[in-house]
Amino acid sequence: MCIPGCQEVVARRLSRRGVFKGVAGMATLAGFSALPAGGAFAAPVSFSKVVDLTHVLDPSFPTYFGKPQLEIRQLFSFDKDGFNLNEWVVNEHTGTHLDTPFHFSKDGPSADALPIETLVVPLAVIDIREKAGADPDYRITAGDITAWEAANGPLPAGAAVALNSGWEAHLGTDRFRNADANGTLHFPGFHVDVAPVLAQKGVAGVVVDTLSLDYGASKDFAFHYKWLGSGHWGVEAAANLSALPAKGATLVVGGPKIKGASGGLSRVLALV
Amino acid sequence: MCIPGCQEVVARRLSRRGVFKGVAGMATLAGFSALPAGGAFAAPVSFSKVVDLTHVLDPSFPTYFGKPQLEIRQLFSFDKDGFNLNEWVVNEHTGTHLDTPFHFSKDGPSADALPIETLVVPLAVIDIREKAGADPDYRITAGDITAWEAANGPLPAGAAVALNSGWEAHLGTDRFRNADANGTLHFPGFHVDVAPVLAQKGVAGVVVDTLSLDYGASKDFAFHYKWLGSGHWGVEAAANLSALPAKGATLVVGGPKIKGASGGLSRVLALV
Ligand SMILES: [Zn+2]
Ligand SMILES: [Zn+2]
Repeated sequence: MCIPGCQEVVARRLSRRGVFKGVAGMATLAGFSALPAGGAFAAPVSFSKVVDLTHVLDPSFPTYFGKPQLEIRQLFSFDKDGFNLNEWVVNEHTGTHLDTPFHFSKDGPSADALPIETLVVPLAVIDIREKAGADPDYRITAGDITAWEAANGPLPAGAAVALNSGWEAHLGTDRFRNADANGTLHFPGFHVDVAPVLAQKGVAGVVVDTLSLDYGASKDFAFHYKWLGSGHWGVEAAANLSALPAKGATLVVGGPKIKGASGGLSRVLALV
Repeated sequence: MCIPGCQEVVARRLSRRGVFKGVAGMATLAGFSALPAGGAFAAPVSFSKVVDLTHVLDPSFPTYFGKPQLEIRQLFSFDKDGFNLNEWVVNEHTGTHLDTPFHFSKDGPSADALPIETLVVPLAVIDIREKAGADPDYRITAGDITAWEAANGPLPAGAAVALNSGWEAHLGTDRFRNADANGTLHFPGFHVDVAPVLAQKGVAGVVVDTLSLDYGASKDFAFHYKWLGSGHWGVEAAANLSALPAKGATLVVGGPKIKGASGGLSRVLALV
């Protein structure tokens, strides 16, 4: 999760800000060492299929704040210039994208500082489609993690945990953001109390199929602060999670390697 | 390589523009069927290491045209707002990035229309470091392809072919662009005559460690037109090619899935 020297930085920040206290904080830091070192996996990974977890992004793609976050400017066109070329004005948190620790911390790793071996990791998929269908404000709890492990065994070291809420089915309709009369959004997410549980298990990142790691109605980004602020990453607005097995897939987060980026549009895929 | 219906479009365009004539053109189209269908590989792929082929991108990263192509605008900062968030103004052909068929054709597939299974492919690495060291205008020839196949066997179906010119060693110095007194660039690339050879073998894409698929001194983008114009893709400014075996790696081109993009910044990696 962390570049050389960064564990110390994170440790200082954690003790200063008290985001994690005592055992939970230490467990988070210890979790880093469970990740594959130097890009080498303990055992070879095998796959025979690639599943694209990335939505097509255009200026109309829904955003958390509700305003467009992508403008495409045509600079050259084939008919006039002999080739096509655009530039984009794009917010780092648009479409299927990466959230880095730096997004919700003063000095956590930005997108360029997350080593690739922390972005190619075993993927656990937790199916909360029924619960989220019944309650759009549903938040994944420690009990959901326990239930997954009871069925599938312990979460693999350095894993990513994806929440499959089925929310993708609402893309293209108002129910994807699901704003009420007060503008409060209603879609599922991670409960803040799950952050230390996942950290203790050495989980590297989490994936949601909605517009936020926190549930839509959150007013304080509590999960963002705890999870990203302790040196972990997230992926928002992932596609096709229903095409994946509960365990056994390898997630590839093709995040942008832009200096100082808090995140950014990513090609996210699963090797199955 | 091609979305449904696009083979017909490409065929019409090819016959109209005469980019490929006769047998070579047909072989290019036939090559599409050699790619894994529906995302499933013929045999499982195995890897135990991930190599990041992506350069860190910042506004100072060199560009083909010589002017900056990335601006990072800070919209929110942790100290003031409680979180960090930027937006980027970025040219589609900046840093380690994808060139799509649409970049040099009227209606070839854009970045959103290249299925993920055409971007996760076997990788052949051709080492021309000595030749490029002796002649910065060196272009890969059909003979280089033949020599690779003599040593490593036939190019795998749907493969990508990377040119390892060693040019990465010049990044951070003027020799990376290597402009002469007239502004002409001097770095190696693919010879235009290699395009139909690779197409006939069913190669899906090519990778260079320089700023252009064509050699720097090209005045007509001849390889770009032939290769991209016939429905293939390219990656420019790749990193770390010297860390890869000549054969056996799997390339992952994490290209941006942006509607109508002619290419764009990508996380490119190899599974070894
Ligand atoms: Zn985000
Ligand atoms: Zn390009």
